[in-house]
Amino acid sequence: LTVLHALKRHLPQESTVYLGDTARVPYGARSAATVVKYSLNNARTLAREAQLKLLVVACNTASAVALPALEEDLAVPVIGVIEPGARAAHRASKGGSIVVLGTQGTVRSGAYPRALASLGRDHGIVTRACPLLVPLVEEGWTEGEIPGLVVRRYLHDLPMDLDTVVMGCTHYPLLRSVLRDALAPHVTLVDGAEATAEEVRALLAKDDALAAPTAHAKHRLLVTDAPEQMARLSPAFLGEVVNASDVELIDVQMTA
Amino acid sequence: LTVLHALKRHLPQESTVYLGDTARVPYGARSAATVVKYSLNNARTLAREAQLKLLVVACNTASAVALPALEEDLAVPVIGVIEPGARAAHRASKGGSIVVLGTQGTVRSGAYPRALASLGRDHGIVTRACPLLVPLVEEGWTEGEIPGLVVRRYLHDLPMDLDTVVMGCTHYPLLRSVLRDALAPHVTLVDGAEATAEEVRALLAKDDALAAPTAHAKHRLLVTDAPEQMARLSPAFLGEVVNASDVELIDVQMTA
Repeated sequence: LTVLHALKRHLPQESTVYLGDTARVPYGARSAATVVKYSLNNARTLAREAQLKLLVVACNTASAVALPALEEDLAVPVIGVIEPGARAAHRASKGGSIVVLGTQGTVRSGAYPRALASLGRDHGIVTRACPLLVPLVEEGWTEGEIPGLVVRRYLHDLPMDLDTVVMGCTHYPLLRSVLRDALAPHVTLVDGAEATAEEVRALLAKDDALAAPTAHAKHRLLVTDAPEQMARLSPAFLGEVVNASDVELIDVQMTA
Repeated sequence: LTVLHALKRHLPQESTVYLGDTARVPYGARSAATVVKYSLNNARTLAREAQLKLLVVACNTASAVALPALEEDLAVPVIGVIEPGARAAHRASKGGSIVVLGTQGTVRSGAYPRALASLGRDHGIVTRACPLLVPLVEEGWTEGEIPGLVVRRYLHDLPMDLDTVVMGCTHYPLLRSVLRDALAPHVTLVDGAEATAEEVRALLAKDDALAAPTAHAKHRLLVTDAPEQMARLSPAFLGEVVNASDVELIDVQMTA
């Protein structure tokens, strides 16, 4: 939802269909094989529900392991959140260490170091799994003593020359102020959602596929379970109030 | 796994087949409909994998909402963890308030108050959802400052006359010492796993279905994802070291 939020700010004229696989999240601790299978289920469901011109994999764990399978399976361009985040981190770093915070799956995949290496950045990269941050955010505990202690525990023992921290999970921007407080002022905090939205706009412009500025954008929210929870989280994650009755409950296609 | 641990202690001669739906846990925040569907998938998978004489639903969330559907679907007795836990709490309480800690799904179901009411106990019952406790336990943070603060936050503002706390989730016994420290010494902490194992033994004895004392018990561990994570958690949850190679990866039957 934080990626959708960024997309709607950067591309207000584009219509969107969002699918949250709330019957099977969180993906962060699952095996790569399972995340690939679920991602294919989800993408095929979206392709069935709407005429897509581009798919954004708005989850770091899925982007880390499922991008090749999704690109092979779909007829439209597929953009994950990791490469844009890695490019933003590469631009932000002044040569000091880059720290990537993410789920166990994202860290285990090595996707960020790989993306950074492909940009010519192959030293001073530390990845760290932070499994408690997603449940903390979902509980709504995004400020105060407990998130502060949890974040500091995950950030212990970082390289002295750290200058860039990547929020390598789409939940983490909700902990931005806690992370900010735990880091030295000169450290840049990179939000992959913003970087992804910028790249989506650039890609659509290059392909001459942007919606007309006068287009009336429509937005659909689909979930695989518990629409009321999506509605509950939407003010914090999406920056708007959503009624549960406006969230559609669907079954994913179990084909992968 | 904490329930399996108790069963193996109380019934060392019984063979067991355990299924952990690690591809779809945690169930705590999912809708009742989804938990029922997953529970039926899991039970049918177990019935396919083994000759069952009894099914233990070793999860409070699933016991809270799926017991009637499982009883209707299976030919063998089905025992959940909630009724044994409620009976133990009823025995332990000296008339003061009973507090039940559990997942959102368990609390929302009202299963503990209903079970207590059927025992004649219909006053002084408080249920409280504690969504962060499962991820804390899975991260292995079961002692020290952070779990202490989290537990105290969930236990704030309890009735003054509290005398019994039910650990209404199979993860919570791993936080026993933190919970103990946060409660007055006269408060009884009820572990549903122990109560369930005792009731399983009683039911098998009544049906004359206990394994012979000389039986050579066999134990199988099945998971739907990531056997190595089950192996990693087994010392804390099961009280024994398990090799990932001894954990079987299976697909659940998606029929419900």
